[in-house]
Amino acid sequence: MARLNDNYLKLQAGYLFPEISRRVSAFAAAHPNNPVIRLGIGDVTKPLVPAVLKAFHEGVDDLAQGASFHGYGPEQGYDWLSQVIIDKAYRPLGVELQTSEVFISDGSKCDSANILDIFDISCKVAIGDPVYPVYNDTNVMVGRTGAADAKGYYEGIVYMPCTEENNFAPAMPSEKVDIIYLCFPNNPTGAVATKEQLQGWVDYARAKDAVILFDAAYEAFITEADIPHSIYEIDGAKECAIEFRSFSKTAGFTGVRCGLTVVPEQLMATTAAGKRVALNKLWNRRQCTKFNGVSYPVQKAAAAVYSDEGWAQVKEIIDFYMENAKIIREGLEAAGITCYGGVNAPYIWLKTPAGMTSWDFFDKLLNECFVVGTPGSGFGPSGEGYFRLSAFGERANVEEAVKRIVEKWGK
Amino acid sequence: MARLNDNYLKLQAGYLFPEISRRVSAFAAAHPNNPVIRLGIGDVTKPLVPAVLKAFHEGVDDLAQGASFHGYGPEQGYDWLSQVIIDKAYRPLGVELQTSEVFISDGSKCDSANILDIFDISCKVAIGDPVYPVYNDTNVMVGRTGAADAKGYYEGIVYMPCTEENNFAPAMPSEKVDIIYLCFPNNPTGAVATKEQLQGWVDYARAKDAVILFDAAYEAFITEADIPHSIYEIDGAKECAIEFRSFSKTAGFTGVRCGLTVVPEQLMATTAAGKRVALNKLWNRRQCTKFNGVSYPVQKAAAAVYSDEGWAQVKEIIDFYMENAKIIREGLEAAGITCYGGVNAPYIWLKTPAGMTSWDFFDKLLNECFVVGTPGSGFGPSGEGYFRLSAFGERANVEEAVKRIVEKWGK
Repeated sequence: MARLNDNYLKLQAGYLFPEISRRVSAFAAAHPNNPVIRLGIGDVTKPLVPAVLKAFHEGVDDLAQGASFHGYGPEQGYDWLSQVIIDKAYRPLGVELQTSEVFISDGSKCDSANILDIFDISCKVAIGDPVYPVYNDTNVMVGRTGAADAKGYYEGIVYMPCTEENNFAPAMPSEKVDIIYLCFPNNPTGAVATKEQLQGWVDYARAKDAVILFDAAYEAFITEADIPHSIYEIDGAKECAIEFRSFSKTAGFTGVRCGLTVVPEQLMATTAAGKRVALNKLWNRRQCTKFNGVSYPVQKAAAAVYSDEGWAQVKEIIDFYMENAKIIREGLEAAGITCYGGVNAPYIWLKTPAGMTSWDFFDKLLNECFVVGTPGSGFGPSGEGYFRLSAFGERANVEEAVKRIVEKWGK
Repeated sequence: MARLNDNYLKLQAGYLFPEISRRVSAFAAAHPNNPVIRLGIGDVTKPLVPAVLKAFHEGVDDLAQGASFHGYGPEQGYDWLSQVIIDKAYRPLGVELQTSEVFISDGSKCDSANILDIFDISCKVAIGDPVYPVYNDTNVMVGRTGAADAKGYYEGIVYMPCTEENNFAPAMPSEKVDIIYLCFPNNPTGAVATKEQLQGWVDYARAKDAVILFDAAYEAFITEADIPHSIYEIDGAKECAIEFRSFSKTAGFTGVRCGLTVVPEQLMATTAAGKRVALNKLWNRRQCTKFNGVSYPVQKAAAAVYSDEGWAQVKEIIDFYMENAKIIREGLEAAGITCYGGVNAPYIWLKTPAGMTSWDFFDKLLNECFVVGTPGSGFGPSGEGYFRLSAFGERANVEEAVKRIVEKWGK
């Protein structure tokens, strides 16, 4: 009989967010009169902005006539979208890119998972703990690990704990690693890295011949000056880093689906025989063979995010969400609950009251306050005793959620 | 230094369609006054139908307001889309499915590539020759093969030649295989399989404990009664087959991006220890972890394909393309050129005149007739000496292309 990929069976329980969804659905079914406030999965709530909607409709209209119809597009995305991203999102940071270095995709979740295709299975991987589960689980699925230990650490992965003690800034691995996942602003902790910290990572990666996979999905939420928005603001990063970006949170595209990956032409890895080959060529081959480009109207909509009008509208929503973050963080802190994040990221990372486990707090919060958040332990062992609240809700819901939490657990 | 996936370097030259695109671009740049007629890549040319456009716009409008906004959707696609596919595309064939068995995706190219994720690397794979290049190349990329030999066959893959001699019906492998790719109506040959032939494959797969990967992307183009549209019309197929379908050719979605994969709950594979596990669960985990669902307005548009109004409109275009196919096939045959396909598939598979190689004919056709087709050898060694013309063009272009070919090579 055909053999399945046994590595899948090493994965523990369900993927985090479907499990949350399952528990929330069960609660909702049992308590139809208690509507839940969802600050959990990190999904946006505000509608698309007018400039984006207009471009989206125009994109659909283009498909209504033969002369403006668009069939198969470039697997890498349309140059006009890559170019506007280069001009509006990178050049202002002092970063110059070519369109051949920008790959448009249907989301950075897919890209950060699929990127493993182009690396050898022997590569040693370092990931943060807690961490966006996709980094960990996809490495398990391709067979880069053994089984998980009692804590939940998989044999073969180098975990970099991010805790109160190190201010959620992972320490550089002492053992040799080949691939390093970094996510700043961080999901789930909301921590950011300074230019000096990122320079340290780039220098480390170049010295050790490692590749950094830099997830910048939340860069639009940075409010403090001097915090880098892109790894390529750092000298030498084009020689060692791939960057992922997303329209999901930036422009409310969680249901629209668009992201991008930058693979600089200079970035090399080696063959078994030691020959240096550009990873850009490999990723291009991967996308051409296994992907067929992003929906044309979606790309039109994405380009409109970076129009002057679109960006002003999008920025207003980002500011709204960050005001939510401030309300959550300040509200909980005033009540004596320890909080991190929420300043340059739409996530608040709080210590669970009374030392509860993350899932205990999840269940209590759901059942007693009708509020959904994300258990910190779902992001890794070092997340145990923490909890993530997202700032993407409606204002009244956010205020109500804070009120209920404070009433129940405030000092 | 980080090691790259060496298997990518075993791939020969570029992926077929980008290579065609490169040659056509070069020709167009050098001959701006000779517009080319494109019957090559298999891209549709007709605009989306009114019912689909209406639903697409409505889907975008839903994203304009908080109350109807859709963020992250189910990774498996919305149930209302899966259900309409079950009701309208499968039930009329006598096939009953559950929504949990239908996975909506951004295209069957992606799915037929990604499906390998859930199988063990040790699985022996059988593919047709000629074949849609994605099946072959993705197996090379995951490391299931050695190098290619002089003919272009990769060590470790079992090739099933489809030639004039066997009427383009592959013979069942005599050696043990675990995964069998079948594509009917076939791309590129246009051949179809009868119910008896498919029953033979299902019986074979069940007897040998193999899994069939059945690509039904062109089922909507079947014109002859009694030719199965789905592998699940065959007794026992749910125990041994995964089916891929696509909206690309059926409804002009090549630039819109939507497809689906059916993984029946009954379909099992084994672990290394010999335990039987449902592949549905593995594919679900794969999609939840590495994919984030299809764009919401795209799913709305896809559902409209199966409305009464939408299907009538879509069917009219399919009939138009099949009339093109008839014009190409009959026109070339009348001029003494041997043709296959074009009856239940939008592809005509012709023998190159004067025994030219496929690429020689490609270059001659481009440079002397300004017509683009696809070299048969690009689909595999047994495609050498053949050439694929697609029926997706505008009528006047199709007629003009036939005229030019007949003038040049007709007897």
